[in-house]
Amino acid sequence: MFRQEIKVHDCTVRDGGLINNWQFSDELVRSSYRALAEAGVDYMEIGYKASEDMFDRKVNGKWRFCKDEEIRAALDGLDSRIKLGCMVDIGRVRDEDILQKNDSVFDLIRVACYLKDVDKAIDLAGKIMDKGYETTINIMAVSTNLEKDIDEGLEEIGKSRVPCVYVVDSFGNMYSEDITFLTKKYLQAMPGKTIGIHTHNNRQLAFANTIQAVIDGANMLDASIYGIGRGPGNCCMELLLTFLKNPKYNVRPILGVIEKYFLPLSREIEWGYIIPYMITGVLNEHPRTAIEWRDSEERDEFVKFYDKMTTPEVMATPSHTGK
Amino acid sequence: MFRQEIKVHDCTVRDGGLINNWQFSDELVRSSYRALAEAGVDYMEIGYKASEDMFDRKVNGKWRFCKDEEIRAALDGLDSRIKLGCMVDIGRVRDEDILQKNDSVFDLIRVACYLKDVDKAIDLAGKIMDKGYETTINIMAVSTNLEKDIDEGLEEIGKSRVPCVYVVDSFGNMYSEDITFLTKKYLQAMPGKTIGIHTHNNRQLAFANTIQAVIDGANMLDASIYGIGRGPGNCCMELLLTFLKNPKYNVRPILGVIEKYFLPLSREIEWGYIIPYMITGVLNEHPRTAIEWRDSEERDEFVKFYDKMTTPEVMATPSHTGK
Repeated sequence: MFRQEIKVHDCTVRDGGLINNWQFSDELVRSSYRALAEAGVDYMEIGYKASEDMFDRKVNGKWRFCKDEEIRAALDGLDSRIKLGCMVDIGRVRDEDILQKNDSVFDLIRVACYLKDVDKAIDLAGKIMDKGYETTINIMAVSTNLEKDIDEGLEEIGKSRVPCVYVVDSFGNMYSEDITFLTKKYLQAMPGKTIGIHTHNNRQLAFANTIQAVIDGANMLDASIYGIGRGPGNCCMELLLTFLKNPKYNVRPILGVIEKYFLPLSREIEWGYIIPYMITGVLNEHPRTAIEWRDSEERDEFVKFYDKMTTPEVMATPSHTGK
Repeated sequence: MFRQEIKVHDCTVRDGGLINNWQFSDELVRSSYRALAEAGVDYMEIGYKASEDMFDRKVNGKWRFCKDEEIRAALDGLDSRIKLGCMVDIGRVRDEDILQKNDSVFDLIRVACYLKDVDKAIDLAGKIMDKGYETTINIMAVSTNLEKDIDEGLEEIGKSRVPCVYVVDSFGNMYSEDITFLTKKYLQAMPGKTIGIHTHNNRQLAFANTIQAVIDGANMLDASIYGIGRGPGNCCMELLLTFLKNPKYNVRPILGVIEKYFLPLSREIEWGYIIPYMITGVLNEHPRTAIEWRDSEERDEFVKFYDKMTTPEVMATPSHTGK
């Protein structure tokens, strides 16, 4: 599959950090940066940008905050062939946390939001663009929205300057026909904008759904090294790079950091195909119940988890709707 | 995805046995049989039928031979809601190993062959049908064949009585567009015959490719519990059952045997997403080089394996072409 416009966007540190509170060593991140650049990957998202007072520094590593001076220091001396990015959540970052592009290490700042907050996302993305950055809007959990609301949100973004909008399968629920439905809808509703795809691997469909989005016209493709990401993780970078036909991409450096860092790491923190996450994916649910289950002594009791998740009265208790 | 004609075919013991020489306990197989029947699965393939003198009894468990009296004894006392099957390879079974259907525990005997042996497969399948069984022909490794040869083989089968032919992605190389190409070709070349799909998970596409085949018209779907199978394994039964919309299918009993047998087993013998198998899949190669690599001390040296597999002179040595 070759198309000149396709860009590959790595989210190893940002999405992987959801498992370990962004406690990645500088060595791992520097090696990943080097490998991704050598592999020809276009963007690396190195964390979330967030205000200092919103998260605890004792719990969260520097990649949770993405302060320019800290990131610059961490990457000191590395060649900058790859564009650097970070993500912001609506309401968790202040204007003053985002420097002017000329003073920043970042090229791209992506805005994540739920559909109900598209107006806020357009506003924030506009400010980010005014400061000189590239931006995208990533509408999370769209598999849970009604079509009329999706259409309304896309119409709003369509009228904005924001150049790129992502189809995001936050819950790992979608299969190929869902991807086609949404990718084509996004393209049609917002002519001229780039469509991105961000998938989760609950049902072992992250890579397949990314391929499907490419077939349907998406040109900004998220992946992470060895699929690292919360729960089942994301589309594997090594799979994506071997699929795309473009001489600029080379999987070999990615295999090197998998061997050296991510395979050992996968024995310390868990991600991948895990039954409770498969179940939340099938049910189109946020993975939080599966995360809690995997932290409990019942972690491998799959039937019990399935029964709990499919028994209606349990679904309505506050512990499953909060957070 | 609902279609009345769809049948689900389990190959847990048969394909899983390729990892452990079919050394499954009666307890595991009986529990799987019970779970698959309760789950509404249509067929269970319980091993290979092979002549006694072709494989070593000391190395291989009874599921490698599938002698009727042994299988009958192993399943004694179990309800028979599910159809029982086994597979035969061309040249590894004699006529006398296959009883008349009326004297047998088996309902279905599938014939596996390479494209070059389609004539032999048609002959053997005919004998199997004459004895009263259902049958299929599974053309292995079709991703390595030229289209003109595929067309010729399908034309031959098209003229035969054999009612069902499988698209088999032996090397885990295919993605959705390959599946569509072959499934449509099979359907068109052999009108009226059922098309089956058997996938491998080297590139995390086994389930996605099975979905694609369903979309394209395949009605006989292979899967295995927790994806067990050589190397990366197969399409996961639990994923397939949650995808198919038919009230007769129920994933819950499958979760039960995963929890009790297959999760513990996966800590003893390896299958799943493993980088050397990903590499052989991408390269459209038999997994044997990856199997040898995983048995060596270099098992986790992914870059070295990649270099070995992508260096032309190495590809031609006898150790990679034999077996």
